Amino acid sequence: MPTLRVPVIENIMSANDQMASQNRSQLDANRVYGINIMASPGAGKTSVILQTIRALTGQLKFAVVEGDTAPVTIDADKVIAAGMPAVQINTGGDCHLDAVMLKNGLAQLPLSDVDLVIVENVGNLVCPAAFSLGTHANVLVASIPEGDDKPYKYPAIYRGLDVLIINKIDLKPYIDFKMDYFRQGVEMLNPGLVIFEVSCRTGEGIEAWSNWLLQQVKKSG
Amino acid sequence: MPTLRVPVIENIMSANDQMASQNRSQLDANRVYGINIMASPGAGKTSVILQTIRALTGQLKFAVVEGDTAPVTIDADKVIAAGMPAVQINTGGDCHLDAVMLKNGLAQLPLSDVDLVIVENVGNLVCPAAFSLGTHANVLVASIPEGDDKPYKYPAIYRGLDVLIINKIDLKPYIDFKMDYFRQGVEMLNPGLVIFEVSCRTGEGIEAWSNWLLQQVKKSG
Repeated sequence: MPTLRVPVIENIMSANDQMASQNRSQLDANRVYGINIMASPGAGKTSVILQTIRALTGQLKFAVVEGDTAPVTIDADKVIAAGMPAVQINTGGDCHLDAVMLKNGLAQLPLSDVDLVIVENVGNLVCPAAFSLGTHANVLVASIPEGDDKPYKYPAIYRGLDVLIINKIDLKPYIDFKMDYFRQGVEMLNPGLVIFEVSCRTGEGIEAWSNWLLQQVKKSG
Repeated sequence: MPTLRVPVIENIMSANDQMASQNRSQLDANRVYGINIMASPGAGKTSVILQTIRALTGQLKFAVVEGDTAPVTIDADKVIAAGMPAVQINTGGDCHLDAVMLKNGLAQLPLSDVDLVIVENVGNLVCPAAFSLGTHANVLVASIPEGDDKPYKYPAIYRGLDVLIINKIDLKPYIDFKMDYFRQGVEMLNPGLVIFEVSCRTGEGIEAWSNWLLQQVKKSG
């Protein structure tokens, strides 16, 4: 008589990770590079997106997925005004995007005619770090007014990054922000992380960031 | 034969609300006024707390509960350096304080010798709004660099406020922040909300806020 055995499944993926994996497959099948932009509220995610579109229009075809906790289309309207297709995902108060939400967003985009999908996550330095979306790169927009202690206080999000943008460097003269201390914290959590210092207000540093992004998209295609 | 009836419990409180109610009772029994300070990361919660302590030392006895997502004591150290008792609650990566965490924090404070407990929540504009702690007032620290659209994008937290502090007004000359648009959004969500404009850097507005807080503490005692 055969022994009754309880099946043991190792390395089972969470439901979110499974869906993230499907999102990645869908992006890859369409030769689309996807980035997930995270930040605390007001660090400048939308401004970075608009500057990136400005810098790379003519070189890449974009689409944008806007995550918001409320049914306001302030950010999506700005992207559409910049001439790019955008869909808005209202999380209904939830504090992060998850892979299912992104799947629904991707379904509304003309992926076969797009090179780069930019996902703007909900403004939050904690929760988005725990939900992979299936994009190719996690981007954090930090900003000078938030203070130089953020990597020490919100380590999880820094650990999972592929690239860091430090925005609002035009405000450095007016704020006590120790760049060495900030970068030391980042290096401790994520050694060798690619970092760009930019000002969406003045345009400083946007070219370097955009060129790096363009290279990533080309390499993946 | 009696009819078998399913008991229906109306207005059942969530576990968190029950614990929040216990926290409130504990504060009241000790004649302690409690405030819950929320904000997005880097808006200036700790700076507001330090300025408030400076303004009201000699008039009130304080204690501070510091919520952090990581085991770093940067903020608690600053409060202790200012001469006040402080306990730190490490949420272990969680995105908000809840009433049980505050209960554990209160247990470590000399409540019988305190007039005002200031709770510094985790830096997050979404999740803390959903968890009442049992404090007497919810305070949000907004800041100019975050942008004037935040009430429209994060309405839930604004709806539950008792007072709003707009920090970093010294940066107004360098940032495109429309105060009218910001205040219009707040008024829509929370009509008549008490608002203070301050700069923790220059000290502007701190006296007005501190006096208001002092009156609340006195009224409650």
